[in-house]
Amino acid sequence: MLVSEKMRPLLENNSAIRAMFEEGKRMAAVYGAENVYDFSLGNPSVPAPEEVKKAIYDILETEPSGLVHGYMSNAGFEDVRESIAASLNKRFGTAFQAKNLIMTVGAASGLNIALKALLNPGDEVITFAPYFVEYGAYVRNYDGVLVVISPNTEDFQPNLQEFEEKITAKTKAVIVNSPHNPTGVVYSEETIQKMAKIMEKKQKEFGHAIVLISDEPYRELVYDGVEVPYLTKYYANTIVGYSYSKSLSLPGERIGYVVIPDEMEESSQVIAAMTIANRVIGCVNAPSLMQRVIARCLDAKVDVETYDRNRMLLYSALKEYGFTCIKPQGAFYLFVKSPVADEKVFCQEAKKYHILMVPGSSFACPGYVRISYCVSEDTIRNSLPGFRKLAEEYGLTN
Amino acid sequence: MLVSEKMRPLLENNSAIRAMFEEGKRMAAVYGAENVYDFSLGNPSVPAPEEVKKAIYDILETEPSGLVHGYMSNAGFEDVRESIAASLNKRFGTAFQAKNLIMTVGAASGLNIALKALLNPGDEVITFAPYFVEYGAYVRNYDGVLVVISPNTEDFQPNLQEFEEKITAKTKAVIVNSPHNPTGVVYSEETIQKMAKIMEKKQKEFGHAIVLISDEPYRELVYDGVEVPYLTKYYANTIVGYSYSKSLSLPGERIGYVVIPDEMEESSQVIAAMTIANRVIGCVNAPSLMQRVIARCLDAKVDVETYDRNRMLLYSALKEYGFTCIKPQGAFYLFVKSPVADEKVFCQEAKKYHILMVPGSSFACPGYVRISYCVSEDTIRNSLPGFRKLAEEYGLTN
Repeated sequence: MLVSEKMRPLLENNSAIRAMFEEGKRMAAVYGAENVYDFSLGNPSVPAPEEVKKAIYDILETEPSGLVHGYMSNAGFEDVRESIAASLNKRFGTAFQAKNLIMTVGAASGLNIALKALLNPGDEVITFAPYFVEYGAYVRNYDGVLVVISPNTEDFQPNLQEFEEKITAKTKAVIVNSPHNPTGVVYSEETIQKMAKIMEKKQKEFGHAIVLISDEPYRELVYDGVEVPYLTKYYANTIVGYSYSKSLSLPGERIGYVVIPDEMEESSQVIAAMTIANRVIGCVNAPSLMQRVIARCLDAKVDVETYDRNRMLLYSALKEYGFTCIKPQGAFYLFVKSPVADEKVFCQEAKKYHILMVPGSSFACPGYVRISYCVSEDTIRNSLPGFRKLAEEYGLTN
Repeated sequence: MLVSEKMRPLLENNSAIRAMFEEGKRMAAVYGAENVYDFSLGNPSVPAPEEVKKAIYDILETEPSGLVHGYMSNAGFEDVRESIAASLNKRFGTAFQAKNLIMTVGAASGLNIALKALLNPGDEVITFAPYFVEYGAYVRNYDGVLVVISPNTEDFQPNLQEFEEKITAKTKAVIVNSPHNPTGVVYSEETIQKMAKIMEKKQKEFGHAIVLISDEPYRELVYDGVEVPYLTKYYANTIVGYSYSKSLSLPGERIGYVVIPDEMEESSQVIAAMTIANRVIGCVNAPSLMQRVIARCLDAKVDVETYDRNRMLLYSALKEYGFTCIKPQGAFYLFVKSPVADEKVFCQEAKKYHILMVPGSSFACPGYVRISYCVSEDTIRNSLPGFRKLAEEYGLTN
């Protein structure tokens, strides 16, 4: 077979995802797109803020083509990184400079360059279930081993006891994601402090750095005034990966950055290695026009109110119908307990009512389903009778 | 050390490049930027054509934000791929469909997803010196081994005898680059036919496919009416990697595509694997706005005349001064024979006259230097007295 051995399992898995996608398309063709309630995707429904369009016009009118569309340092435009650093410092009381930032092709590339810079074959990377399944592929790209901590279904804060037990001499990094996909949980300051303490202890015990990688594309999507702690302030060996995919609704543009603070061990070498990784994995640099747009949109934000209305509408309805679900504080997902142990059966049953959801198994957390509420309010409203019938069918209603 | 073992040699090598870059900055500070003749970079000097700006405006005015900036298939927008396929078919008499194309984050990502999809550890990838040094890093990303065919300094067409000898049972792919960086050579139809014949013979001999990867970001930058053969027409197992970095002067935007023809062995699996690779190496998809721009700029092209004038100006002058150099037919580089065996000494000497060039050793071809003429005409004119003095110094003038 022509395809490499490492890629073959991914090929097989992909067929399953494709089957789900094809099923959605088939249902839309049969019943009409407006009668299919597709809660399976994380594609933002709220448009990019007007500032983005205005920034593009301003840039094209005032900056020369060679600057706007040209090569720059593999780390990104210095002035753009400077502006973002200043904005972070103002918001979080940090002390980053341009040199601490690398502009990346979205958060996914940010994670990849961090892992490429850090991992030797066999190195372990810990993450907490439920987790974004791509983490596994990213870690295996560099022959690392993903170690998964089992879910704490009580409140979906990380299971810190198991975490402490599973850190070994081979642990090189830990990936956290808050606000969290798929649960919508925000890791509390207390959680972060405890994690940092455990990691510091283990660093001493094993005599080498353990890097905390914070994947935070949902940072700006929070509700009820909840605060998302900035992790470099709690643990020195932290790399932050950020993306504008959700905060500015630009997921297709692939624009984000990573932060490597000076406090990090061998910081300048890690920065250099990640910058080179950005080049050699083939990104070369983050898209240039979008870099320049970001520098002009530092205070812009999508309309989070809309997501909040969707959240409350769907959460209240599902609770009323008898479903079990924690109230999400961030992101745009509800993680709902399946009324039957095999949540795939529940997902299948929901299709009767034209409702599409992602089984929790896809996040290493069976028994739950992910419902993305980054859809129109109409989609939610029109789906509710279906959810109610499902609740009745499973005897959830009081 | 925190940085992975695989990245460490890249870190060391990077310091050398950085040193060169710093030297250029130092010279610009001392002598004034206009008095430093920097021929070391491949950053296009000709602006993007007006059609690009117009396309961006049209798109922002007529297409919804969710489409323009949103997620699409990991292979890219279907309508965009369809348009590019139709344009290729019209130009080259091919029969591609949307499914044969994957939009990529520039040509560098295109090469990476091809190599990730194909290579098992230890697989060999052949390329021809002089070659773009990043190929080595791309191949090593997937634990492949780059096998380099020594340069044919006669005319810089590939050394096909050595090529045939070095194909082994482990050869999985061959990378060619035409129009060629750093020599400006265009591989002739005769060369391509001979290569194809050799590769077909070796495929039979070893009983497995050998993939030809054509890296062709310079396709549109050709002079004197030379034709660049379209390789899928000569050899079935061909993957074409293309980029708009040079044809539309958009190198910072990271927009390109790969073509995998139906004629390729296990074509649909290779396409699926490369699409997944696009996702898991972290690109996810090529930047969305730029994809949509490309579909509206299929017949646009930078002002190649400007590069041609630069080419003739510099080539004629250097020949007149006594330098040895083949006349480039494409791209925007001259590859000039160093008057002394160690071309690094020559590069050092040229700095006296504020001339910056890249040593051929950086392309596995010592004894030569690369001069990028994608600079302003003034830079070339003002550099000529320096080149004349160098020629005199080395006794080249008649």
